[in-house]
Amino acid sequence: MDENRASTALDELITALPDGTVVTDPDIVAAYRQDRAADPNAGTALAVVRPRSTEEVQTTLRWASTHRIAVIPRGMGTGLSGGATALDGAIVLSTEKMRDITVDPRTRTAVAQPGLLNAEVKKAAAEHGLWYPPDPSSFEICSIGGNIATNAGGLCCVKYGVTTDYVLGLQVVLADGTAVRLGGPRLKDVAGLSLTKLFVGSEGTLGVITEVTLKLLPAQHSACTVVATFGSVADAANAVVAITSRIRPSMLEFMDAAAINAVEDKLRMGLDRTAAAMILAASDERGPAGAQDAEFMVDVLNSHGAKEVFSTTDPDEGEAFVAARRYAIPAVEAKGSLLLEDVGVPLPQLAELVSGIEAIAAERDLLISVIAHAGDGNTHPLIVYDPADADMTARAHRAFGEIMELAVRLGGTITGEHGVGRLKRPWLASQLGPEAMELNRRIKQALDPLGILNPGAAI
Amino acid sequence: MDENRASTALDELITALPDGTVVTDPDIVAAYRQDRAADPNAGTALAVVRPRSTEEVQTTLRWASTHRIAVIPRGMGTGLSGGATALDGAIVLSTEKMRDITVDPRTRTAVAQPGLLNAEVKKAAAEHGLWYPPDPSSFEICSIGGNIATNAGGLCCVKYGVTTDYVLGLQVVLADGTAVRLGGPRLKDVAGLSLTKLFVGSEGTLGVITEVTLKLLPAQHSACTVVATFGSVADAANAVVAITSRIRPSMLEFMDAAAINAVEDKLRMGLDRTAAAMILAASDERGPAGAQDAEFMVDVLNSHGAKEVFSTTDPDEGEAFVAARRYAIPAVEAKGSLLLEDVGVPLPQLAELVSGIEAIAAERDLLISVIAHAGDGNTHPLIVYDPADADMTARAHRAFGEIMELAVRLGGTITGEHGVGRLKRPWLASQLGPEAMELNRRIKQALDPLGILNPGAAI
Repeated sequence: MDENRASTALDELITALPDGTVVTDPDIVAAYRQDRAADPNAGTALAVVRPRSTEEVQTTLRWASTHRIAVIPRGMGTGLSGGATALDGAIVLSTEKMRDITVDPRTRTAVAQPGLLNAEVKKAAAEHGLWYPPDPSSFEICSIGGNIATNAGGLCCVKYGVTTDYVLGLQVVLADGTAVRLGGPRLKDVAGLSLTKLFVGSEGTLGVITEVTLKLLPAQHSACTVVATFGSVADAANAVVAITSRIRPSMLEFMDAAAINAVEDKLRMGLDRTAAAMILAASDERGPAGAQDAEFMVDVLNSHGAKEVFSTTDPDEGEAFVAARRYAIPAVEAKGSLLLEDVGVPLPQLAELVSGIEAIAAERDLLISVIAHAGDGNTHPLIVYDPADADMTARAHRAFGEIMELAVRLGGTITGEHGVGRLKRPWLASQLGPEAMELNRRIKQALDPLGILNPGAAI
Repeated sequence: MDENRASTALDELITALPDGTVVTDPDIVAAYRQDRAADPNAGTALAVVRPRSTEEVQTTLRWASTHRIAVIPRGMGTGLSGGATALDGAIVLSTEKMRDITVDPRTRTAVAQPGLLNAEVKKAAAEHGLWYPPDPSSFEICSIGGNIATNAGGLCCVKYGVTTDYVLGLQVVLADGTAVRLGGPRLKDVAGLSLTKLFVGSEGTLGVITEVTLKLLPAQHSACTVVATFGSVADAANAVVAITSRIRPSMLEFMDAAAINAVEDKLRMGLDRTAAAMILAASDERGPAGAQDAEFMVDVLNSHGAKEVFSTTDPDEGEAFVAARRYAIPAVEAKGSLLLEDVGVPLPQLAELVSGIEAIAAERDLLISVIAHAGDGNTHPLIVYDPADADMTARAHRAFGEIMELAVRLGGTITGEHGVGRLKRPWLASQLGPEAMELNRRIKQALDPLGILNPGAAI
């Protein structure tokens, strides 16, 4: 579309929506070019649209369909795979102004608009003694809509499952502006195809989520926490398998030597700088069962050659270790820019994945620190590089691809919880195979025949 | 297709598959006309095909696509909504010969073929100290493939979720014979659309499931059981809401007066025949937490006006009550033929649903007994009628529809766990609305453009 036609089209949208909903100020539009993936190839949108209701989203998508203008749905822009990277000539549809929530303790559900932060959903639930479990590390800054669009994970998923397990219903607006209600506050409902689940994790390619019905749990019980250091990554990884094959810890995290040292550099909490790996585990089973689980984990960790094992029932002490683990990404980021990976493997392949990543780091002469939601086999290799160093940047990008190829070879996934976005799309076919790729395309074509929804992302 | 052409086509399939795979013996074919919904309008298939491998399913579907012959996928034929009712000129594809299973305790997963019984999956898991939770009442006779096709529920779903929550991966064969692998033994995987979840609950309309990867849990802990009788259905329903809004019972079942009396007629276990309702609840929390939950439930039941409350930690005693609850359907069936309903509502509407059903029973002069997975709002009204009495049969069918209409009016679902099949299809649109219906049709059209997969069922 040429500039004049685009500008005329945009005037139409500006008129159709309440004042201030469509933003064309170049500085503001520029601030919506990238998400946390910081894609250097990001384009510049025509405008940023910030609707406040389902109806305003419908107006926007009807307009976009009429003018064949691409729409990039965006939550809080914390995505790590470039799922919300702007394109030239597109509009960015930000759900940040859609912030209502109602909690119904009788049904243990919440109905939320997509722009609310994950932490705000947790807080609203907590006011009724309830709990929304999914806890991506970015929970204080990421939106619930973005969580649903990426089927986000987190630390407690090893026991409590991922976002999709808590989504009972959705309202979505399709590419042509049709609003559809799917599911609702019913724990069992098999009427029609499982469309609610299809939209979870669809990364803005099938529709825009404008409302979500979430399942809540009673408040979590306080946890017993166990920390162990290992001289060998393989021993740590094997201990993880030995734990999860017998019990359900509420957290089971891994940090390698580089992550331990990066955190210790910043927090000075006395972590063992000589350790090859650290495991951080917890059980939130009630009463003595939590302590029994902790004791079991201490035994398993010791019998797998842990250097040191520490166990605590003090929630503050436990939380300090969780905070250290959450701090690992910023701590490693202090060493340089990061390419943040998100590969996963079936648990028995965890040790081989980590040693394979070490080999890639050596081969490409890079620092790659591995942190992991070990209990579900989901790792975050952090590739450190200097963007001013062209050769190093090229090596970092090569390693980024090689790590995904390694995960696929080990029967794993290129993305456990961040999404495919634009960054990982070139590797998707190697994991899914041609038949599943074709199936993805058929569904996309059926729901968005003009291809205006988040083109170039995910599928 | 005329008879000669059909017969020539069938010869082709008989030749293409191993001896004995295609069955045309009229007595055997007749035995596959109906499932447990006993649809009087069932047709007669050309043949029953009983493949042993994914490849044989592919051969069958390629052949069916070429000849435009409808395929009715079938598990063990225990479906209650007519999802496996045969059609004239179609073939019935029974997965009953596909019976392999491998359990991997390291990943706490099982890879199973669809023809295995749910009970056999549970048993294979138990041999490794593991547990497959979903427990439809028919678990000893229903297939895991059928469970997945209907997204089956059961008694433990109130705490442990439904079938879809345990499906990590599938192999499916599409209408054109393409085999596709979706997901796998990875607890987190967001690469591509959530197609695994889309196939769960698709009732054989999108593809044939030929392999499934299931998530398993560590063995369940023994439960504390609480039984209470009430003089009022509303009091019992309100007690249910008061329990689930605070804790997570592992079972929370309801029987009305008719069900209590029907069971007591048969089992003579001393149930209170004067009670209007009975609640059966359990907690499988470990150690003292289970007893704490039981105590909490006893208090809630008493404070909601229970006539009598009984609590036990003896697993055998608890199991006797569960057996009584499971026996309710056959016990009521002794009074006449049954139309078995499966409507659900958001929990706070449970009392209104049950009283509305009472009103329909009075209006239509019928015995309708209500049993329910009360904790998740999923009820099974059992409409008793005499098929030899044409007027009564007509009234029963009218009540069947009126109960679904009532559930939809209360914000509920026409089917919580049995599926839409052919019996409930006329009511699907009233629940989903035209937009969601159109979305269902678009997906169906994208995946099965010739419409050969289970035509007339579900969508």
